[in-house]
Amino acid sequence: MSFEVTILGNSSASPGPNRHPSGQYVSICDHHVLIDCGEGTQMQLQKFKIKKSKISQIFITHVHGDHILGLPGLLLSMNLMRHEHPLHIYGPKELFEILAVFFKHSEMDFNFPLHYHELDTTQSITIFENLYYKVKTFPLYHRIPTVGFLFEERSILKKLNAEACLKLKIPFTHFNNIKMGKDYISPEGKVTPNEELTFPSGQPLNYAYCSDTAYDERLIPAIEGVDYLYHEATFMHDKLERAEQTMHSTAKQAGMIAKKANVNNLIIGHFSSRYDDLQPLLDEAKTEFENTEIAEEGRMFIIE
Amino acid sequence: MSFEVTILGNSSASPGPNRHPSGQYVSICDHHVLIDCGEGTQMQLQKFKIKKSKISQIFITHVHGDHILGLPGLLLSMNLMRHEHPLHIYGPKELFEILAVFFKHSEMDFNFPLHYHELDTTQSITIFENLYYKVKTFPLYHRIPTVGFLFEERSILKKLNAEACLKLKIPFTHFNNIKMGKDYISPEGKVTPNEELTFPSGQPLNYAYCSDTAYDERLIPAIEGVDYLYHEATFMHDKLERAEQTMHSTAKQAGMIAKKANVNNLIIGHFSSRYDDLQPLLDEAKTEFENTEIAEEGRMFIIE
Repeated sequence: MSFEVTILGNSSASPGPNRHPSGQYVSICDHHVLIDCGEGTQMQLQKFKIKKSKISQIFITHVHGDHILGLPGLLLSMNLMRHEHPLHIYGPKELFEILAVFFKHSEMDFNFPLHYHELDTTQSITIFENLYYKVKTFPLYHRIPTVGFLFEERSILKKLNAEACLKLKIPFTHFNNIKMGKDYISPEGKVTPNEELTFPSGQPLNYAYCSDTAYDERLIPAIEGVDYLYHEATFMHDKLERAEQTMHSTAKQAGMIAKKANVNNLIIGHFSSRYDDLQPLLDEAKTEFENTEIAEEGRMFIIE
Repeated sequence: MSFEVTILGNSSASPGPNRHPSGQYVSICDHHVLIDCGEGTQMQLQKFKIKKSKISQIFITHVHGDHILGLPGLLLSMNLMRHEHPLHIYGPKELFEILAVFFKHSEMDFNFPLHYHELDTTQSITIFENLYYKVKTFPLYHRIPTVGFLFEERSILKKLNAEACLKLKIPFTHFNNIKMGKDYISPEGKVTPNEELTFPSGQPLNYAYCSDTAYDERLIPAIEGVDYLYHEATFMHDKLERAEQTMHSTAKQAGMIAKKANVNNLIIGHFSSRYDDLQPLLDEAKTEFENTEIAEEGRMFIIE
């Protein structure tokens, strides 16, 4: 099962000549979702040859412009391209008010089912789960209501021992139940325990997305031990005062959170447009947490 | 006095890999304005090395996404870059409702004076004039309320005959009045007629912007005889039915309007993303009107 994160933008509020506002494309077990959607996200998807038509869910952390201003245009283009599948958008309730006013005045009618899911930004909640993955929110600490997202493979789903199932001539219609941990009961009433039909599960892989947020250790329980953590690093630590004023983090602070939360890997992004060279931000985060990487635009991180 | 139009985007609703939604940067007598502001306009300004800080007016034709979705992000960036001068935005009233909801929820405060001017989209009105140029609206014929803009150098402003003024020792504080056509009256009461102090005026240069609109000959009086006409040409004429359904024009129709309005030059743009090669659109418009050019992104048209 693949689990990949592609970076579409790594800039904070103002884009640079080759830097774009926040957006990430996540593929998880053949499902394709977007996290945040800054201005130009649809152009970045084109540039990296990612098909808009595959996206089934969009998760928005908060309604600052650099996280949402690409969303109306993306929806407009999906509509024109005759998108057919349902699209689910998760975000703070203010997002839907903004979209509603725009859609009303531009007289937009959608050809595909569009479902809005208002998020409670004050607590950690499981907002989606299917057989393959689940998505949880957790509060971030920013100037307006903001949430982070945790994407997690579902540990409940076990790997089928196909050979054992074939030997017992178990009909494939039972496979999902077996993957979900159930024993098999034959038409004659004979029970085969689940552990004889599946392989032992490994730890479920997970990815936590934190943008934008002040340095705040209350985050730690929500992201503890994740395989990959994306944490904003808008400033170098010599701009700590500015980071505190604007409720953003420094690269050093991103490293501190990663260390304290005992994660495996850290990706830093959301860099202020004052930084042309991102290496010093990486170096600074690494003083706290060695396994750090830059959210380079176009780069795909494979979570495994 | 320079009068130049730089194309920032020539795509209709959906952007292509190297094509952007509507936006033009107009410099007129040292004033710098933007017409329409589709998604990515601020990135296009950066790409073509145009300073956002110079812009003092933004004119929006209508609130379809491909004409406005770059505006909130541009304003956000101007604010972050500590823009200081007043900025005037002209557009249909719906635009300001859309901006207001976004600014409210993103809790944006502006450091610079921002003035909103609601346009009456039903009639032709002079919405701005200073010593150097004036701007008039005229109705376009599209699915939602839409206006075109006519930019015109002020014919009232004459060229000073500096030699004649020096000979008569006229104080420079009188020069603006003389440029505006007034006679000079000396402290002793002697009148020098204006025509002895100025050169005869040529025809004022002008530029008309028509996007988006169905083919409609009611446009002609507003754009008759202009030096440059920008007219949308979303489709080739074999897609006439689609053009009529969506209230857009074909390249042939843009040429027809240019011919009937007896303009000097035609620029066509707002091309559907189905066209990779724009040459056939140009060829088609030229069958009706020879002096036609493509609105190539980054190209500057000098109006002289």
